Amino acid sequence: FIVWCRCFTLWLTSPSFNRVHGISFAHRSELHKAKRIVVKLGSAVVTRGDECGLALGWKASITSQIFNWLCREMIIVTSGAVAFGKQRLRHEILLSQSVRQALHSGNGQHKEMSVPVLEARACAAAGQSGLMALYEAMFTQYSTCTAQVLVTNLDFHDDEKRQNLNSTLQELLRMNIVPIINTNDAVVPPPEPNSDLQGVISIKDNDSLAARLAVEMKADLLIALSDVEGLYNSPPGTDDAKFIDIFYPGDQQSITYGTKSRVGIGGMEAKVKAALWALQGGTSVVIANGTNPKVTGHVINDIVEGKKVGTFFSEIKPAGPSVEEQTEMARRSGRILASLKPAQVMNGSRSEHVILLLLCDPLPASRFDLSAGRLPSAMLMRLSLSLAKLNSLAVGLRQIAVAAQEIVGRVVRRTRVAHGLELEQVTVPIGVLLVIFEARPDCLPQVSALAIASGNALLLKGGKEAANTNCVLHQLTLEALSLHGVRDAIQMVSTREEVEDLCRLDKLIDLIIPRGSSQLVQDIQRAAKGIPVLGHSEGICHVYVDADADVDKVIKIVRDSKCDYPAACNAMETLLIHRDILRTPMFDQIIEMLRKEKVRIHSGPRFASYLTFSPSEARSLRTEYGDLECCLEVVDGVQEAVEHIHKYGSSHTDVIITENKETAEQFLKQLDSACVFWNTSSRFADGYRFGLGAEVGISTARIHARGPVGIEGLLTTKWVLRGDGHTVADFSESGRMTYLHENLPVEQDLTGQRGEI
Amino acid sequence: FIVWCRCFTLWLTSPSFNRVHGISFAHRSELHKAKRIVVKLGSAVVTRGDECGLALGWKASITSQIFNWLCREMIIVTSGAVAFGKQRLRHEILLSQSVRQALHSGNGQHKEMSVPVLEARACAAAGQSGLMALYEAMFTQYSTCTAQVLVTNLDFHDDEKRQNLNSTLQELLRMNIVPIINTNDAVVPPPEPNSDLQGVISIKDNDSLAARLAVEMKADLLIALSDVEGLYNSPPGTDDAKFIDIFYPGDQQSITYGTKSRVGIGGMEAKVKAALWALQGGTSVVIANGTNPKVTGHVINDIVEGKKVGTFFSEIKPAGPSVEEQTEMARRSGRILASLKPAQVMNGSRSEHVILLLLCDPLPASRFDLSAGRLPSAMLMRLSLSLAKLNSLAVGLRQIAVAAQEIVGRVVRRTRVAHGLELEQVTVPIGVLLVIFEARPDCLPQVSALAIASGNALLLKGGKEAANTNCVLHQLTLEALSLHGVRDAIQMVSTREEVEDLCRLDKLIDLIIPRGSSQLVQDIQRAAKGIPVLGHSEGICHVYVDADADVDKVIKIVRDSKCDYPAACNAMETLLIHRDILRTPMFDQIIEMLRKEKVRIHSGPRFASYLTFSPSEARSLRTEYGDLECCLEVVDGVQEAVEHIHKYGSSHTDVIITENKETAEQFLKQLDSACVFWNTSSRFADGYRFGLGAEVGISTARIHARGPVGIEGLLTTKWVLRGDGHTVADFSESGRMTYLHENLPVEQDLTGQRGEI
Repeated sequence: FIVWCRCFTLWLTSPSFNRVHGISFAHRSELHKAKRIVVKLGSAVVTRGDECGLALGWKASITSQIFNWLCREMIIVTSGAVAFGKQRLRHEILLSQSVRQALHSGNGQHKEMSVPVLEARACAAAGQSGLMALYEAMFTQYSTCTAQVLVTNLDFHDDEKRQNLNSTLQELLRMNIVPIINTNDAVVPPPEPNSDLQGVISIKDNDSLAARLAVEMKADLLIALSDVEGLYNSPPGTDDAKFIDIFYPGDQQSITYGTKSRVGIGGMEAKVKAALWALQGGTSVVIANGTNPKVTGHVINDIVEGKKVGTFFSEIKPAGPSVEEQTEMARRSGRILASLKPAQVMNGSRSEHVILLLLCDPLPASRFDLSAGRLPSAMLMRLSLSLAKLNSLAVGLRQIAVAAQEIVGRVVRRTRVAHGLELEQVTVPIGVLLVIFEARPDCLPQVSALAIASGNALLLKGGKEAANTNCVLHQLTLEALSLHGVRDAIQMVSTREEVEDLCRLDKLIDLIIPRGSSQLVQDIQRAAKGIPVLGHSEGICHVYVDADADVDKVIKIVRDSKCDYPAACNAMETLLIHRDILRTPMFDQIIEMLRKEKVRIHSGPRFASYLTFSPSEARSLRTEYGDLECCLEVVDGVQEAVEHIHKYGSSHTDVIITENKETAEQFLKQLDSACVFWNTSSRFADGYRFGLGAEVGISTARIHARGPVGIEGLLTTKWVLRGDGHTVADFSESGRMTYLHENLPVEQDLTGQRGEI
Repeated sequence: FIVWCRCFTLWLTSPSFNRVHGISFAHRSELHKAKRIVVKLGSAVVTRGDECGLALGWKASITSQIFNWLCREMIIVTSGAVAFGKQRLRHEILLSQSVRQALHSGNGQHKEMSVPVLEARACAAAGQSGLMALYEAMFTQYSTCTAQVLVTNLDFHDDEKRQNLNSTLQELLRMNIVPIINTNDAVVPPPEPNSDLQGVISIKDNDSLAARLAVEMKADLLIALSDVEGLYNSPPGTDDAKFIDIFYPGDQQSITYGTKSRVGIGGMEAKVKAALWALQGGTSVVIANGTNPKVTGHVINDIVEGKKVGTFFSEIKPAGPSVEEQTEMARRSGRILASLKPAQVMNGSRSEHVILLLLCDPLPASRFDLSAGRLPSAMLMRLSLSLAKLNSLAVGLRQIAVAAQEIVGRVVRRTRVAHGLELEQVTVPIGVLLVIFEARPDCLPQVSALAIASGNALLLKGGKEAANTNCVLHQLTLEALSLHGVRDAIQMVSTREEVEDLCRLDKLIDLIIPRGSSQLVQDIQRAAKGIPVLGHSEGICHVYVDADADVDKVIKIVRDSKCDYPAACNAMETLLIHRDILRTPMFDQIIEMLRKEKVRIHSGPRFASYLTFSPSEARSLRTEYGDLECCLEVVDGVQEAVEHIHKYGSSHTDVIITENKETAEQFLKQLDSACVFWNTSSRFADGYRFGLGAEVGISTARIHARGPVGIEGLLTTKWVLRGDGHTVADFSESGRMTYLHENLPVEQDLTGQRGEI
């Protein structure tokens, strides 16, 4: 504690510098517009070979990334000549010593050889040629020329020299040659003796060199790669250390630097000073780690593509809070929301909001989104909030309001552990949810209502297409929340935030719920590190027509399952037919109906084998068509149908049509899917239709909530144990107490005094 | 379908070849013993630059990996000279053409230039020097010499030539020089015209070359890197395609190769033939992907370290089934187990097993493990199965048997959706669980009983230390399971299997439950891709002593929480003291008790500020000591205590000691942890003590189960909908039906006819 308290706050100097060119980018998402980029490679990036010998790989991958961006103008500022040379010279000295020994003693036995202290400037000279040869070899792979430019900081002080340097670099860039710039370490003064830089000199020099150069060359972006992730508000590793994603010089952020770091005192401070200098000159700056094996392969790409890598320096602070701040505000407010007493809930604090939502007609804003651009009709359908949609929304929200009174804060289990020791398991909200939804704005009030009803804090990230509608709907929600002082519990995340970045906030977010295409869900499942994702990526639903099926029901159910809304995840994708039905009038009627509805049929391998001229074969029995298409396959009976579905299904929703109760129960019992239906359409798999009011999504995960997820799926439990000085030791063999473990009834708590938790 | 059916089964030839040296390795875990390794780099690995320009990075990382293993003898067989040369020659031709045009026309306008068809052998000659220069440049980075050796297959037919080659390579290896071998493409016959190899010739040749060389040089391992993941039993991408992890030539596995692949017909077949040839010569073979950006950086390391990368060729088939087969057997048996009717369960099918377990005394085996080696005493304590342990185990298992009758297959919700349309939500098992446990063998019967009771299939992976005890306990479980024909439902995974590999089986396993050190849990959380992990990595439990606390209870509870078993996750790590208690007799008594119990106290920053001479400061307020150490900090009151715990706690178990009911309820209500206790020891956070019988673990995750997890935590639900031809369209605005959504009572189902699901 004392150690990292001995630190100093950065003195934010305003360098005496006149703005040379335009302003820097305001947000990471604009970085891809950068035309001229200076990449500064710290010594660590160029030479670090002590860890798993990957230095070469790092360099190579950085080279290839620079090549990737050669449509831009790239300038490299490299360090590492000294460290490189040191390695080389040490090797040479050992070699020459051993030769000398061999010549003198002649017996081949080597004595302990001592390596003399190497002079840094000699190392720099020896290393520079090797370093350049390596860059040359690598860029030659891409048929790209490089040019070596050695400068000193003094070169910038002389106007003529500066001009010469400028025109040299301009000319090189014009010819698509990559200038590789380094300080001319062989002629600069040696590093100060007390800075324990261990051969990693000129970091400080190269930081300011890169900054000066970036401003001089009017670069749009300076990427400074070293072996630190970026800037922290206090030394990394301490309890309160927070990574600074975006640094605003105007902001009075207090940063404390640790007294020690691998590259000596002031390493990060010098970097920040240089970055601020460049920023004021109109160049955006990102400080990032170029040696992290996990991201090295694409660190430059990621930065230019606007991902949250390293610390971004921006002059313009966005109006709203950062997403991290939003999350914290939401959690704080969410805790208040969750602690509102059931009495308050019953008085309408939660249901009131729901009614409010319905009184204000959000249609105008919705119309605005619709006219804003030319969108495909499928999306228009999803965007629009028709009266019918609003109606069922209203019914659903009322159901939620009613359910909330019974479900939240409920005691689900009570046990008398021992005399005077009572255990309760009570439902509590999960915490902070992040809901990512595409078009569909009706998702917003549904999810908000479910979150409020279950006492969860909520981050909403909507699509750009419905931004206006979402904004109006969110405002309504906020009004309702304000009545109870929990306005911050539901936050709208800026559309600029990358989904991938949000998925990394595993310390802040407890559950991610993606609502949208299966592509979205898959992307999020992949991106979410350590945060559970509730959802399903595929909906391969089956309808099995048994031999004992009633033809009218078959036609009705198959039509509804496939044609009611073919793009839905609960639409039928594969129709399984009992073998005995083939070539019966019922079969003909099914095919006739599908033809009439313009459903394109793909045949499974077995079905195809029965026919002389079969329809096109299904590419795979695991296809989710999401359109007026389906696969048709033949099975021997209910057992084979179950096996087929277990093998090719996605455990979403599967249906049996039969009049035989026994067959049906076998199907319902054996099948492993989240929803199993008998003689009804697969389209019923829906929170509203199930009577849950609404759903945050349909889950095919096997733990936690499954199928349509309403309020109950947004709750978890906590265990409350009330005793009177009980200790575990009391229950040991020599102790005086024994466990009772009596189950107590839980009903009385709904009205009792203890129900307030 | 038809396309991939037109394929042919590999004709597994037994090459007429006499075994040269020892046998190949039987298992991946032995590969690290390989002393001489041949690495074959396919063209794709060496030249593929079309995707994100990473070719250089790949090569570099492979170079660095080869360097990593230079303590072994490494031989490189490289392809890629033709592709390399093609690129170069094309560039040269374009250049020379443009020069010619410039000279002839003189107007600087370039006409469309045509690139003539390049002769592969010329390309090879031109590319070889560039390729070698690149290898040279890269290995020079590691001060490693390389040597170029060009051979043809014919060189192996002549005994003298073969001998010469052999002694050349032996000599090079002796001098730590890396031989880089390629076919002398400039002199070999041109490739057949109809093999559409597009400049990627000599793959086939180099595969057999590498195999021959490996056998000739008596290499222990041949790593063949190309751009395919390895061997599949049918063309990848088809519905039934399964990756072959280990290929046994003796096994009559039928492999179908696709008709087309990027490298033409027979690419994979040739590789397999070459691999089998090498295998029979006594060299182990791994075919893997060297171009997959995610693993390239460590593919060679991973293979040598025995990880499941690519296809491993082994002559010796292990006795048992593979873990994938085990998982499938377990799932199949698990489904039968889950479908056993409640009546059967009540007749004792599940509880019977539990009793059986207790009748047979597993102590002898346990003693065997204990005497097997010299283990630290803490581990001995965990390994031993004392009578006391067995007793509480017996009580717990009986509780589980009783609970199973009430909990599994329960209807938790019933809704009349509409007239004739009834919805039920019933509890079902999660599926296949993987439990990874360290020492403690009592975990095995507990977890097995919970799995059987909840109808889940189970994979058990125990530590090596208790292998014998575990084996005996597992046998007992199998006997019980056999009575009901579900012997396969609980499988013991070989201790040889890597935990990391198991964590990748996301298609097969539904939930991972690690039981062991927090390091184990963290490792598994990191390794598990797409499989949820149930557990907690940290247990930072707090005890808050309020101003209104009773001194006797404080002493009892603090002593029990910290000293009963300091290594447990539910032991107290931080003691929070109300400010008013400081410098009171109660405070002195607490300190006195801790001193007596030899608990080392670390002071929090605020506590330290009150004292002139404070104990050593806590390194971090988030420390889990796991020993007779704790942190002591001062807070202003219950509100600050809650905030402190939210900030620094791990949401495991937190305790308040107070006589003030209001304060206690505030603490219990506001705190977010999985277990919140009033006036009792934190050590009660345990499935057995909670009356759950046993626990599979304690979860601090916020979704699904939380706190001690018993049977209920191993269940999920499915939705069963029974209708009579209902369609969603019936409920549309123009439809004739309306939703009722009546909640029906669920109690009657416990005895009713429908409870059989």
